[in-house]
Amino acid sequence: MTLEIPEVVINRLPVYARALAALALDGETVVSSQALGERLDVTPAQIRKDLSYFGRFGKQGRGYNVQGLLTRLREILGLDRKWRVALIGVGRLGQAIAEYGGFEPQGFQIVAVFDSDPRAVGKLVGNVEVRNSGDLEKFLRANHVDIGIVAVPAHAAQSVVDRLVNAGIRAILNYAPMAPHVPRSVAIRHIDPVLAMQSMTFYIKDREPGAK
Amino acid sequence: MTLEIPEVVINRLPVYARALAALALDGETVVSSQALGERLDVTPAQIRKDLSYFGRFGKQGRGYNVQGLLTRLREILGLDRKWRVALIGVGRLGQAIAEYGGFEPQGFQIVAVFDSDPRAVGKLVGNVEVRNSGDLEKFLRANHVDIGIVAVPAHAAQSVVDRLVNAGIRAILNYAPMAPHVPRSVAIRHIDPVLAMQSMTFYIKDREPGAK
Repeated sequence: MTLEIPEVVINRLPVYARALAALALDGETVVSSQALGERLDVTPAQIRKDLSYFGRFGKQGRGYNVQGLLTRLREILGLDRKWRVALIGVGRLGQAIAEYGGFEPQGFQIVAVFDSDPRAVGKLVGNVEVRNSGDLEKFLRANHVDIGIVAVPAHAAQSVVDRLVNAGIRAILNYAPMAPHVPRSVAIRHIDPVLAMQSMTFYIKDREPGAK
Repeated sequence: MTLEIPEVVINRLPVYARALAALALDGETVVSSQALGERLDVTPAQIRKDLSYFGRFGKQGRGYNVQGLLTRLREILGLDRKWRVALIGVGRLGQAIAEYGGFEPQGFQIVAVFDSDPRAVGKLVGNVEVRNSGDLEKFLRANHVDIGIVAVPAHAAQSVVDRLVNAGIRAILNYAPMAPHVPRSVAIRHIDPVLAMQSMTFYIKDREPGAK
């Protein structure tokens, strides 16, 4: 069954889970697909269809139980557990990632940090000692790691991704400004602010210069 | 015509442009949709269909002229000019954004930086002096800005986005971990590494603990 669920559906579920968590925090116990959809700028039909892949939620006309649906989505996505993350690359970007406070509260713990620069090795970044990236495979053999974050320059990214994949990593968050190849069995997501900006300029390029 | 082009197509064009720029740098003058597709893990048919929205490129069986297609894509996307960017929020994340070296070579220049913390105001971040965010609208009235980058905490993001939109900004890159509402006339993209990781754990959660 898992294989039949479109990736776009899986990609939307964390958004639903986040909105439900915010509602729960606000003390809401029930939410309709209409209200959830308005909050997220998606149609109620979309929400109902996405959730239908995973069974029946809510009763017709009575909305979803906020905590119940949240718990179920967290189970489905695997957000109800801790995930061990290795970060490769601690240049300026990698340091910002290591020190970003948003991962750990969501269950993503950076347990190891690697860099190829001998001057970086041994330093503390985000409370984790930087290891020599030559020791990457040895570390991954000896320690359980679920996710690799790649924050190396573009020219080094494919090689680092290949090494992670060969060492058994099945989920990669890529910050390098290129799209490394991975086997179909490996999940990869790209964080690419330049591409994001380049995909918006199309829509604003015909405004008059200086127009407000 | 512009309105009929699906957003997913527009989102792929910068990826094609980047690949073509890399090919040009390698001295390649011609590329087939097959070769370009293999490089990007998309089908040749997808590339041909995406490009067909913008006219005829390349000759049957002879591939695309690398520099010609690159130049045309850059025109279409508006990547052949400079874009003026304002950054709002210079906490740890905002500082990393301001100091990120990847924007300027692609034509995105951070011309102003704002923060609500009086202790941050006046400091230099990425060679730009931090302004008081109370002066945001005044600055945007007096200076041309194309794109706003929002790097404030989640609870402040909607308010900052509303202020940018009301001041005439039509493209927003949002780093806050929530999805602010914008009118349909405004483009917004989200940089959200936690959501990206949460969309991958679904695929690895059924692996045995400790499996490599």
